[in-house]
Amino acid sequence: MQTIEEYINDNKERFLSELFGLIRIPSVSSLSEHKADMVRAAEYWKQLLLEAGADRAGVYETPGHPVTYGEKIVDPSLPTVLVYAHMDVMPVDPVDKWHSPPFEPEIREGKIYARGANDDKGQGLMHAKAFEYLVKTGTLPCNVKFLIEGEEEIGSVNLADWCSSHREMLKSDVILVSDTSMIAPDIPSITTGLRGLAYWQVEVTGPNRDLHSGLFGGAVANPVQELCKLIAGIIDDRGRITIPGFYDDVLEVPDEERAMLAQAPFNPEQYRQSLGLAELTGEEGFTTPERTGIRPSFDVCGIWGGYSGEGAKTVLPSKAFAKISSRLVPNQDYTRIERLMKDYLEAKAPPTIRIGVTFLHGGQGYVCPPGLPAYQAAEKAYLDVYGKRPVPTRSGGSIPVIAAFEEVLGVKSLLMGFGLESDAIHSPNEHFALEQFFNGIRTLARFYGHFAALARPVA
Amino acid sequence: MQTIEEYINDNKERFLSELFGLIRIPSVSSLSEHKADMVRAAEYWKQLLLEAGADRAGVYETPGHPVTYGEKIVDPSLPTVLVYAHMDVMPVDPVDKWHSPPFEPEIREGKIYARGANDDKGQGLMHAKAFEYLVKTGTLPCNVKFLIEGEEEIGSVNLADWCSSHREMLKSDVILVSDTSMIAPDIPSITTGLRGLAYWQVEVTGPNRDLHSGLFGGAVANPVQELCKLIAGIIDDRGRITIPGFYDDVLEVPDEERAMLAQAPFNPEQYRQSLGLAELTGEEGFTTPERTGIRPSFDVCGIWGGYSGEGAKTVLPSKAFAKISSRLVPNQDYTRIERLMKDYLEAKAPPTIRIGVTFLHGGQGYVCPPGLPAYQAAEKAYLDVYGKRPVPTRSGGSIPVIAAFEEVLGVKSLLMGFGLESDAIHSPNEHFALEQFFNGIRTLARFYGHFAALARPVA
Repeated sequence: MQTIEEYINDNKERFLSELFGLIRIPSVSSLSEHKADMVRAAEYWKQLLLEAGADRAGVYETPGHPVTYGEKIVDPSLPTVLVYAHMDVMPVDPVDKWHSPPFEPEIREGKIYARGANDDKGQGLMHAKAFEYLVKTGTLPCNVKFLIEGEEEIGSVNLADWCSSHREMLKSDVILVSDTSMIAPDIPSITTGLRGLAYWQVEVTGPNRDLHSGLFGGAVANPVQELCKLIAGIIDDRGRITIPGFYDDVLEVPDEERAMLAQAPFNPEQYRQSLGLAELTGEEGFTTPERTGIRPSFDVCGIWGGYSGEGAKTVLPSKAFAKISSRLVPNQDYTRIERLMKDYLEAKAPPTIRIGVTFLHGGQGYVCPPGLPAYQAAEKAYLDVYGKRPVPTRSGGSIPVIAAFEEVLGVKSLLMGFGLESDAIHSPNEHFALEQFFNGIRTLARFYGHFAALARPVA
Repeated sequence: MQTIEEYINDNKERFLSELFGLIRIPSVSSLSEHKADMVRAAEYWKQLLLEAGADRAGVYETPGHPVTYGEKIVDPSLPTVLVYAHMDVMPVDPVDKWHSPPFEPEIREGKIYARGANDDKGQGLMHAKAFEYLVKTGTLPCNVKFLIEGEEEIGSVNLADWCSSHREMLKSDVILVSDTSMIAPDIPSITTGLRGLAYWQVEVTGPNRDLHSGLFGGAVANPVQELCKLIAGIIDDRGRITIPGFYDDVLEVPDEERAMLAQAPFNPEQYRQSLGLAELTGEEGFTTPERTGIRPSFDVCGIWGGYSGEGAKTVLPSKAFAKISSRLVPNQDYTRIERLMKDYLEAKAPPTIRIGVTFLHGGQGYVCPPGLPAYQAAEKAYLDVYGKRPVPTRSGGSIPVIAAFEEVLGVKSLLMGFGLESDAIHSPNEHFALEQFFNGIRTLARFYGHFAALARPVA
């Protein structure tokens, strides 16, 4: 029988050309101009799954972008793994910061550079290729289902409903996801916690038109300045969020667990330098990994208003806007935070302006227990490939759908990420190392055997 | 002899078609893509002056946009009036707010709608047409020079130098300017004070690239938030600017002069409603006209950073920018304020970000004494046309070159504005009433006779 090593060697070029084909579809879910590309990406995934060995695969409509589903049922009495990935990507701006076109993948120094190279086209395809190997060699020891969605980067707004109306089809014992990162190429890790998210757009209106800043300046509230004041007030001098009630549901992580998480290697000096910063910052009393891993945060993702062109335009703008977001920890309910933020901003806004706060999307945080059979199977798979046990970590990122899966399908997810923190996902020059891509395929191919054994205890 | 009334009646259509031709040249001085349009505007003005009766006219190069100069010397022993106007206009964004294309003038309800209809193409052309009448009827009682610049909206950056090297040619007894407004169509006024201006661009840099707000949020300073904090700190709760030393050189206006200025009709309720505001605001202890007329102010003219597209992008931006400006009162030196602002922002910026403050342009404030012969001549001209004396007012706007004229040429300027505050200059749907345009021509045509008589005392 062909080993996974031989199979990768024989099919390397094809794997990459399939990935490149997927990357070349600019499936930016947040921009309506890419609506047709989302359909193309869904069809492309369907084809990928069928060619990899799925018994059947189809593209399903939702009120938003489509979902691709495929499956191979070896034997209904065997355990079932549901693989989740997403076909959509983030916008590419600022596009002039890219060293090569974002949708034209290029390999430089052993890394694939492109939007989606890692998140989540590269990581998603690893699963299809591990599955393909097991099918082609007749060694698939359990049933596999694939759910590839098109709205992860916009908060998976329609997926929970879709899952709810396809519960039977999606039945499984565990959900397998590669949409996170690992500590270092030689330090495998499994993400055991994810932050939740709430995201709003704020619109501040001052005068009913742009005004001449000389004729009116000093007599009329400037909406940009009022927005700045509101934003400036959200974080205090100790790095804490000032919104009343914001921390009410935050579970303090016990010291023993903080000590365990602190074992993951982290070099603050290197981290600081890699970001080009003179100093790090954050909530008082917590380390940098804790600030992103176990504590909530608040960030302005965008701000705009008035004149931003060349030179000087002396205008007192009519409007100012911001996109603001908060990362939440497990047990903080984003629907409550949504309301707290809205109430706070509306209460703080002075009567000299009008404010509108629109909730754009949200998701709950997630915790994965290491006792899960799938977790143990993953540990063994990493041990096989890397020669060492994976380190459990908490990620600062959010995959809102993971909490929704638990709620709607009643199934836990296992986060086996093969990206690296330095892969610049969501940024210009996103990349994914070939080594990570192929190690991912190797590890996932090993996972199924261990999982089938652990999930079906020997009689 | 043809009266000014008859001359206007006979030539109305031509006057408007000449103005429309000028407006159709999109002479936006701040945008480099309009460089060639600036040259076209300068040539157009040269032609206008020659056809109106100038002995000679020419286009002069500067390191920036060109200057048009023309003159008619009746007799070197007679007094000389130097007319100043500007051919450049502000950018037109947000262009979707215009009800008709900004560079395609349209007359609606007795008003010309277009960028530059008032500021300063409409007001500038009034001078050329009053001059034309006096030349064609052989009644020009003094020498007239025209100086039309192309960089007023970007701070007249090259004009002082150009004036300095053309001192002899520009010799005059008074400079006549129509680039301000009057109180109401039936309440003529003369602007006796202008605010100065300082304008900066601020760039705040956080991490060396846009980051994923989940993976990094909470551990890295967000440059948008730091910029917001800096901006929020510039004005205190009493509406005062907090920059140390900012008010040092502000001359408090004596109570008697405040009382005189308070005589200008002003309806705060109407003003508030016309701006669509629930409440006005500003520095404690001053009225709205005082806040814009005799007090300095601070405004953000633009802000941008991060994602501003459709939907939600979860990004922690690398950079944030703002265009900020301060209106100054006479005696505040903008070069000092320039430094104070820069020092303040650099000192306040935390070590978690980098800040760059670039000075874009500035100009000094100006005060015109009512004892000036030209002021008295203007009073008589308004009395002739409107049947009432003009009210002296202070404008919140800045015409940096007015202070420069006094410094470089040693000549005072007289500000006879015929625009209205509601003309939306610098905004979408800028307009200029035909009645104001023709009354301007009538008044300016009367000015010269009075001025020649007053400036040359009867022996």
